[in-house]
Amino acid sequence: MNSLCDLDKKDLLLRLRRIEGQVRGIQRMIEEDKYCVDILTQVNAIRGALKMVGLKILDRHTHGCVKEAIKNEEGDKIIDELMEVLAKFTD
Amino acid sequence: MNSLCDLDKKDLLLRLRRIEGQVRGIQRMIEEDKYCVDILTQVNAIRGALKMVGLKILDRHTHGCVKEAIKNEEGDKIIDELMEVLAKFTD
Amino acid sequence: MNSLCDLDKKDLLLRLRRIEGQVRGIQRMIEEDKYCVDILTQVNAIRGALKMVGLKILDRHTHGCVKEAIKNEEGDKIIDELMEVLAKFTD
Amino acid sequence: MNSLCDLDKKDLLLRLRRIEGQVRGIQRMIEEDKYCVDILTQVNAIRGALKMVGLKILDRHTHGCVKEAIKNEEGDKIIDELMEVLAKFTD
Repeated sequence: MNSLCDLDKKDLLLRLRRIEGQVRGIQRMIEEDKYCVDILTQVNAIRGALKMVGLKILDRHTHGCVKEAIKNEEGDKIIDELMEVLAKFTD
Repeated sequence: MNSLCDLDKKDLLLRLRRIEGQVRGIQRMIEEDKYCVDILTQVNAIRGALKMVGLKILDRHTHGCVKEAIKNEEGDKIIDELMEVLAKFTD
Repeated sequence: MNSLCDLDKKDLLLRLRRIEGQVRGIQRMIEEDKYCVDILTQVNAIRGALKMVGLKILDRHTHGCVKEAIKNEEGDKIIDELMEVLAKFTD
Repeated sequence: MNSLCDLDKKDLLLRLRRIEGQVRGIQRMIEEDKYCVDILTQVNAIRGALKMVGLKILDRHTHGCVKEAIKNEEGDKIIDELMEVLAKFTD
């Protein structure tokens, strides 16, 4: 189980479907010999959109699972796990 | 026209199709209530894969269009353009 | 008050003093007309070191202040604050 | 020799001296037990300032050394070197 309510899920799925479309769009741009810098601009847009998705999941996870675990005196393990995924997120 | 040869294109399209599949995979994980941290790990993986795509396009663009423009004494404009897209890429 | 114990502080101060020295080192490299790419390599090293400092403070803060606040039923505000600083950290 | 003119150098040295002061400021904040989130905000500020320094050096290097090398038919090696430092810069 995760900490995403139906509203979160709907929002995230919408964002991810849009990102999926953008990734397909880049494939088309490459096939059609579009200008590299325009392709890179699209890559940047997707990276930004994915970061937003990551931050939203992080937010829900912390407000949900992490808070719950801390209240049940099981906070340290889940915080270590959070920090590990965070370190990779900032790469 | 861009600086991607057929070999570059094939490699990039393969990577992007894989990324597209990973984005669909995350949607499935959300629908199936998978654990947030596992979803985040997947988000990180896609971000890394997209960065690699960006770096490869950047590399081909610099070895191709940028080099060509500099030889034709039109380097400064294309370098300014490159730096602008780079600044966003490092966000 | 923050969540840093004496041991954390000592470690962080050591790291920051080293970073301060590296920043001075870059100034010297610029004054001595060192090669740009070597300067950039040093800039990257400092950015990495600063990220590590940030991650360590983040870790202590979450294990300390955030955990404490959640136990005192004041978690949501401090988590929002954490997410805000995190969003900037990932820029 | 690098591609920095006296004006670039003066600007970069000014920025680096400011960054050095900010790094010292964080050490003071830690010694005075300032709030973690305020320290992190300062860490973010320095990271942003260092990124700007890196982008400026990158810009001068590309407009200078890289352009020159390409005109002298020695472009590919210097572009490979540029891409390598860039890949680390985007970490």
